[in-house]
Amino acid sequence: MSDATFNLSRRLAAEALGTAILVGTVVGSGIMADNLSDDTAVSLLGNTIPTGAILVVLITILGPISGAHFNPAVTFAFLLKRQIGLQVALAYIVVQVLGGIFGSIMAHVMFELPTLQTSTTIRTGFGQWFAEIVATFGLVGTILAGIRFRESAVPWLVGLYITAAYWFTASTSFANPAVAIGRSFTDTFSGIRPVDLPGFIVCQLVGAALALALFSWLLNPSKPAGE
Amino acid sequence: MSDATFNLSRRLAAEALGTAILVGTVVGSGIMADNLSDDTAVSLLGNTIPTGAILVVLITILGPISGAHFNPAVTFAFLLKRQIGLQVALAYIVVQVLGGIFGSIMAHVMFELPTLQTSTTIRTGFGQWFAEIVATFGLVGTILAGIRFRESAVPWLVGLYITAAYWFTASTSFANPAVAIGRSFTDTFSGIRPVDLPGFIVCQLVGAALALALFSWLLNPSKPAGE
Amino acid sequence: MSDATFNLSRRLAAEALGTAILVGTVVGSGIMADNLSDDTAVSLLGNTIPTGAILVVLITILGPISGAHFNPAVTFAFLLKRQIGLQVALAYIVVQVLGGIFGSIMAHVMFELPTLQTSTTIRTGFGQWFAEIVATFGLVGTILAGIRFRESAVPWLVGLYITAAYWFTASTSFANPAVAIGRSFTDTFSGIRPVDLPGFIVCQLVGAALALALFSWLLNPSKPAGE
Amino acid sequence: MSDATFNLSRRLAAEALGTAILVGTVVGSGIMADNLSDDTAVSLLGNTIPTGAILVVLITILGPISGAHFNPAVTFAFLLKRQIGLQVALAYIVVQVLGGIFGSIMAHVMFELPTLQTSTTIRTGFGQWFAEIVATFGLVGTILAGIRFRESAVPWLVGLYITAAYWFTASTSFANPAVAIGRSFTDTFSGIRPVDLPGFIVCQLVGAALALALFSWLLNPSKPAGE
Repeated sequence: MSDATFNLSRRLAAEALGTAILVGTVVGSGIMADNLSDDTAVSLLGNTIPTGAILVVLITILGPISGAHFNPAVTFAFLLKRQIGLQVALAYIVVQVLGGIFGSIMAHVMFELPTLQTSTTIRTGFGQWFAEIVATFGLVGTILAGIRFRESAVPWLVGLYITAAYWFTASTSFANPAVAIGRSFTDTFSGIRPVDLPGFIVCQLVGAALALALFSWLLNPSKPAGE
Repeated sequence: MSDATFNLSRRLAAEALGTAILVGTVVGSGIMADNLSDDTAVSLLGNTIPTGAILVVLITILGPISGAHFNPAVTFAFLLKRQIGLQVALAYIVVQVLGGIFGSIMAHVMFELPTLQTSTTIRTGFGQWFAEIVATFGLVGTILAGIRFRESAVPWLVGLYITAAYWFTASTSFANPAVAIGRSFTDTFSGIRPVDLPGFIVCQLVGAALALALFSWLLNPSKPAGE
Repeated sequence: MSDATFNLSRRLAAEALGTAILVGTVVGSGIMADNLSDDTAVSLLGNTIPTGAILVVLITILGPISGAHFNPAVTFAFLLKRQIGLQVALAYIVVQVLGGIFGSIMAHVMFELPTLQTSTTIRTGFGQWFAEIVATFGLVGTILAGIRFRESAVPWLVGLYITAAYWFTASTSFANPAVAIGRSFTDTFSGIRPVDLPGFIVCQLVGAALALALFSWLLNPSKPAGE
Repeated sequence: MSDATFNLSRRLAAEALGTAILVGTVVGSGIMADNLSDDTAVSLLGNTIPTGAILVVLITILGPISGAHFNPAVTFAFLLKRQIGLQVALAYIVVQVLGGIFGSIMAHVMFELPTLQTSTTIRTGFGQWFAEIVATFGLVGTILAGIRFRESAVPWLVGLYITAAYWFTASTSFANPAVAIGRSFTDTFSGIRPVDLPGFIVCQLVGAALALALFSWLLNPSKPAGE
């Protein structure tokens, strides 16, 4: 979806802005929902619906500029597909991470909480790790197949996929190293302990690579005499 | 929606993958929602919204490969319409059921529950059976009329139909033998006792056949001099 | 949206079927939601989301056959606009009302409740009546302007409008005489006392007529030299 | 999105009507939700979902007439962009404010509450002000980029953006001076003290101006030899 008429500084600005608003939404809506309810499922609804909604918006309005990755695992998949160069990919990942951290800070300022925080929420163990593999596999598969079959629907597909994955994965589907790092900077509803980041990030990259492998085969139309 | 350029192994893979993620979403979101809330209606919202959302995604991204049935009752309707051959239909149904069972197992692994379970949730009686007839009638009618009038909207129509049918049918609208079998392998929120499967499956096939009969008439444009 | 290639019997069947499923959804989801929750706002969410969703589906799949009125107030507005003849309009209204009553009965059978019921829920007074005028004004205005500017979006516009109107009108937005009559046949969450029907229906027709008057002016492009 | 074939009186009527229904929805759904639930997060869901839904409807059906600003901050941004003249902009703002006030009154009449009220809900302080800057920045950026890249999606983008911003901003995202003024006329769930209006309105205009500045740069395609 990246458009060659936008230069690198605009593309990086779009990646940083998009990731900041995405993490600001995840963290901010988590704080709001947790403040207002004693029912954790209601809080998770109040966290899920805004996240799904903002993804549709951000991918629609920033996709034509930068491709709207907002996610090092997605950039990694496009790097493996050779649709983005190594240098640009690394620049994307740096600004995604910085944007993600800024998103947490922005949420704290709005809710008048301490600006810099470190999460104490434990998110580790085999179930969580497997969930992140599944979550990122599904996200990257959705993006690859969506671009292939109906590119204009990709913003909706990603928003709806994450809406579902918040609930069907045991980890509430981080599926994004930059978002995970950003969320380690908040000790609120959506946080994750810094020490738990490596496990999540490795599993996210594994999930992305698995999706690339399977969908490369699945989406490749067979030759008439192929099988 | 099936595309002749994709060979049978890809089509079967798409059916298996789609049904697995669908059942993984139903079972996984049911576990998550039930864990987090004491209000069963909130849990059902947390089960409904992800299911509707993932259906839009899965049908959009896998429909061009296999037709995105994910459902033996749908395959059965297309078999009756002679839009799929008997052998392929049987292969579809086998992989749908295997995918559905795998979906339950995948959810258990993510939530660190016993991998193999058997449901003890009673779902039987006239009301439940009538509900499954209504639910599957509506689903198959939605698909047939959707393909006829606005094929590109079918992913949305199915997602929205199931969102509604979760609530307006007394059975929460299984409407799918492969999903029902998959859900018999989990003793969590969304399970169904194996002994209750035959009643559900028979009613689902009846509902599909009724929809095919009514909509074949309804969707057939009258001749100018017809009435 | 009506399509001349579908003869009258198909059009009437589409109106009856659509109104039956619409009322079945309103009544059925009301029963389900009320059974499962002690929080009335949660129950109303469980009533609202399915109703909005099914409207998108029903109008998309049946609109090309009958125009998908499912609502005597809408048929009345098209009659005033001379886009439907008096005889066909009366036939539409009869099958809409019969479909609505059947919808309540269908919900009762699914939930194993007494088949024939009479509502005891009081819905009367100036606030309720004014709310029904506002609700139906907005619904008919949405339909008229939607057809004028983006006909393909009308199913979504109606589904979203009713989703909103369930909450912003004091009456939860019946906005439909056939649905109101159907809902007088159930003594559950969504019922209305038969004695309160005349007030609702009169206000609905007033709201429809007001919408037709205002939007006929609003949607009529001014002549270049007009002002 | 404004259409020259509609004269000024129709455009002003569309702005007044749209803003009235928007505020009527915000205030009315707030009253309904607050009446029905003890869980404030559930009430906020019952306030959010109708607001997002009605925005999609109103912008779709009135956008072709007036551009569907419904918001002095949006009109202010278009004035700065010289896409609307000063006199028309002032007329837009006047009818938006009057419409907003009428929306609160309409909600009170439907819910049989005192017609004229003054809010006592405190909404002030740095966090709230920063939140309004963020909220309006995001809204105006969404509109500018949406018009640039996919104009037909703008109704959805605005509805989804506000759905998210209700939760991720500490102020529940007023992001609209006319809506803020309208909401100062109700002492219910969604009210705001009149004395707190200036802080909100200044921050909203600041957010709009910041969005215009950043997005003017971001959306301006670089020249091939630009960097």
